[in-house]
Amino acid sequence: MRRASGDVRSPFVASFDSLTFITDYGLEDGFVAACHGVAARIAPAARVIDITHLVQPGDVRRGAAVLAQTIPYLPPAVHVAVVDPGVGTARRGVAVQAGDSILVGPDNGLLSWAVAAQGGAERAVQLTNGDLWLHPVSPTFHGRDIFMPVAAHLAAGADLASAPTSRVRDGEAEGEVMSVDRFGNVQLSIVAADVSELGVGFGSPLVVRCGRRQLTVPFLETFAAVAPGEIVAFTDSAGLISLAVNAGDAAQQLGLPPGAHVRLSVARPS
Amino acid sequence: MRRASGDVRSPFVASFDSLTFITDYGLEDGFVAACHGVAARIAPAARVIDITHLVQPGDVRRGAAVLAQTIPYLPPAVHVAVVDPGVGTARRGVAVQAGDSILVGPDNGLLSWAVAAQGGAERAVQLTNGDLWLHPVSPTFHGRDIFMPVAAHLAAGADLASAPTSRVRDGEAEGEVMSVDRFGNVQLSIVAADVSELGVGFGSPLVVRCGRRQLTVPFLETFAAVAPGEIVAFTDSAGLISLAVNAGDAAQQLGLPPGAHVRLSVARPS
Amino acid sequence: MRRASGDVRSPFVASFDSLTFITDYGLEDGFVAACHGVAARIAPAARVIDITHLVQPGDVRRGAAVLAQTIPYLPPAVHVAVVDPGVGTARRGVAVQAGDSILVGPDNGLLSWAVAAQGGAERAVQLTNGDLWLHPVSPTFHGRDIFMPVAAHLAAGADLASAPTSRVRDGEAEGEVMSVDRFGNVQLSIVAADVSELGVGFGSPLVVRCGRRQLTVPFLETFAAVAPGEIVAFTDSAGLISLAVNAGDAAQQLGLPPGAHVRLSVARPS
Repeated sequence: MRRASGDVRSPFVASFDSLTFITDYGLEDGFVAACHGVAARIAPAARVIDITHLVQPGDVRRGAAVLAQTIPYLPPAVHVAVVDPGVGTARRGVAVQAGDSILVGPDNGLLSWAVAAQGGAERAVQLTNGDLWLHPVSPTFHGRDIFMPVAAHLAAGADLASAPTSRVRDGEAEGEVMSVDRFGNVQLSIVAADVSELGVGFGSPLVVRCGRRQLTVPFLETFAAVAPGEIVAFTDSAGLISLAVNAGDAAQQLGLPPGAHVRLSVARPS
Repeated sequence: MRRASGDVRSPFVASFDSLTFITDYGLEDGFVAACHGVAARIAPAARVIDITHLVQPGDVRRGAAVLAQTIPYLPPAVHVAVVDPGVGTARRGVAVQAGDSILVGPDNGLLSWAVAAQGGAERAVQLTNGDLWLHPVSPTFHGRDIFMPVAAHLAAGADLASAPTSRVRDGEAEGEVMSVDRFGNVQLSIVAADVSELGVGFGSPLVVRCGRRQLTVPFLETFAAVAPGEIVAFTDSAGLISLAVNAGDAAQQLGLPPGAHVRLSVARPS
Repeated sequence: MRRASGDVRSPFVASFDSLTFITDYGLEDGFVAACHGVAARIAPAARVIDITHLVQPGDVRRGAAVLAQTIPYLPPAVHVAVVDPGVGTARRGVAVQAGDSILVGPDNGLLSWAVAAQGGAERAVQLTNGDLWLHPVSPTFHGRDIFMPVAAHLAAGADLASAPTSRVRDGEAEGEVMSVDRFGNVQLSIVAADVSELGVGFGSPLVVRCGRRQLTVPFLETFAAVAPGEIVAFTDSAGLISLAVNAGDAAQQLGLPPGAHVRLSVARPS
C-alpha cells in the first residue's frame, strides 16, 4: 500500500470472521469463558479459536513460541495473546497489523515471533482508546477488559484511528517507544516502510529526535554491525525500527522509556 | 411485566443464540462432547460457550461461585450447569429465568448465586416435561439426557408451558418447594413479584398452606429478623420466596420436602 | 443404494455442518488449534466439536472406546480421530462412510468401534489423494497436514473419487487390505454389500485372489466357525470383509500386508 508522504496512516478497516486466543489463564476457572462472553457480546458473528490456555503462568517466551508456531495454520483473524506478568504496571497494550491478521496483546515481546512469522509488522498502535474497553477496567484482568474487547471491536470492523500511530509527515517518521526488552533494546512503533519512505537505506545516517534531544545513528542490518558500545538503528524481527547499543543498554543510555515520543529523519548533509 | 391476577404465567418464549456450559465432567472423556452433540442436533444455530468442566467432582459451591463470577460477562443465553452429586435421587431439575437469560440445572443451590447476580429469579419451573428429554434417560447422565436437551430446546424457542409453574390465582400464589438447603431452608418456586401481586409487603402476615395444613408467618426482609426458633418468610438472594426457622430446620419442622405443593396468601383480619 | 454390477462406487457427495475431533495431542501446545485453523480455512462454515484431546498418548483402544461411546450423540459430521503411534510408517489413512457420517483417521483400529456403533461401514477408501493434503506434509503431524484437511474438504462437499475404492466389476469385488490387527486378522476395504452383490452368502465358498495367488475360503458368520488353523472370511464389526485364521495369523500365513490389492469372487462349480 503506497501512501502519500505526510498522510496519517489509514486506520485498520477490515473485519474478521475469527478471533484466536492464547493465555496462561488455565482451564479451571471462568476466566477464558468471560473473555469468550465479551467477544460474543461485541462481535457475535466471530468464531473464537482457542490456541491454548495452559501456558505456564507468566511464561512469555513459551506463549510467544506457541503462538508463532501455530499462526501459519490459523485463518485471517484478530489474534489475542495474554501472558502478562506486568498487568497493571506501565507496560502497554498494542495491536500490530501483520500479514492478513492483527495481533493484540501486551508489549512484552509475546507477539514478536508471531509478527515475524507473519512477515513483519505493517502497523503498530498502542491500545489507548478507552472507548473500546470494558469499564470498570480491573487492574488484573486486562484480557477481559481491554485486550478481548478491543480485539472483538476490531473483528467487528472498528478502526483504531483514535489511538496514537506512527506517521510520516514533513520528512519525519513519528512514533513511540513500543517496548524495551531485557537487553535494553528500544522497539519503536515505526515500521520499516516508514523509514523507506523517508529515503533511508542501509548505511544511511538516521537522525533520532526525542523532545529536544537529538542524535545521529547509522541505520544498519543488525546491531552486531557496530562496535561494542556503539548505537545503531535496525529493523527487528517484527518489522519494527529498533535502537540498540551493541553489548549495552540503549533504553538506559538514550533515556527512552516505553511511550516516549520519537521522530526519525534522514540526516541532511551539513 | 404486569400480569392480570389469576393468569397463568406466560411461558418462556424467547430464543437464544448462545448456550453456556459448566460441569464437573472433566476433559478426559467424551461427556462434554456428547452434550455438545445433543445441543448441535436440537439447536444447530446456537453456539456453546464452555465456562469450565474442571470443577472438582461434586463441588457445588465451587461451581456456583465460578458461574456467578462469569455470568455478568456472558451474552444472553441458556446457561447449563451440572454439578450434581444427587443425580438419580429425588433432587429435581429446574429452569430459572433471570435477567436476560435462563439458567438450567439441578435444584441443589448450584444456580443460586448466578441467579442473584442476574438480579433475581423472575420465574422458576421444574423440568418435568419429558417430551424435551433424550430417551432413554440414563440415571447418571442427566446433563446429556435432561439438562442439555431441555436447554437446547429452550434456546431454539421452545417453551416450558407444560411444566408446573408458580401462578397467582384467586388471591393465592401457588408453587412448589424448589429446594431445601443443608440448613433446612425451604426455597419455593414462587417469585417475589407473586407475593407483591397479592399485596403482601414487609411485615405482612402471610398464610402458608400445604394440603390441609396451614400456618401464618411474618414476611420479613431476612430470617434473622425473628427470634431463634421462629418461622419466617423472606425473599432469598435468588429472588425466590423462602421459609426458614431462625437457627432451626424449617423443612423438618414444617414437613415440606422438595416438590411439595404450597399456596401463599395474605392473612385477612379475623 | 443399489448399483449396477461393474459400476465404480459413486463418490462421497454430501457436505456436513460439523466436524468432530478426538486426539492424543493434549491441550498444552498449539497442535489442536493448528488443526482447527486448517479446518476454518478450508471449511469456514463448519463448526468443530472437540471430543477430547486427552487420550493417553498412543492409546488407540482408549481413543476408539471414547469415540464409539460419544458418536451416537454427535450430529451428522466428518469425525476426525488421530491417535496414531504409527504416524510416518506404512500405516495408511482411511475415510469410512457409516450411517450419517464419515470417519477419518489412521487404519490402526481407532475407527472400528465407532464405525460399528454407526451400523457398519458402507464405504471405505484410502486417503491417497494428495490434492486434499496440506503441503509440505510433516512426517509427524498428519492430523494437521492430512487428516484434518481431507476431512474439512469432505465437510465442504469434496468427494474422494480419485482415491482407490473397492468396486464390483466382472463378477469380482476389488479392494485393498485396509488394516492388520495384532492378531493378524486382515481387514479389507470391501464392504459386506459388495460380496452380497456377487451372490455370496453365509456358507458360500469365496475365491480370494492377490496377484497370481489364489485360494478358496468359506464365507461364514464368524472366525470361530472354523477349526483352529483354518482360514475363514467374515464380516467384521465395522461391516468390512475380513480374513482370519482361527487361533492363527492370517496376514502372515496369506502374505497380505496393508495396501495389498485383493479380489474376491464366488467359487464356480468345476
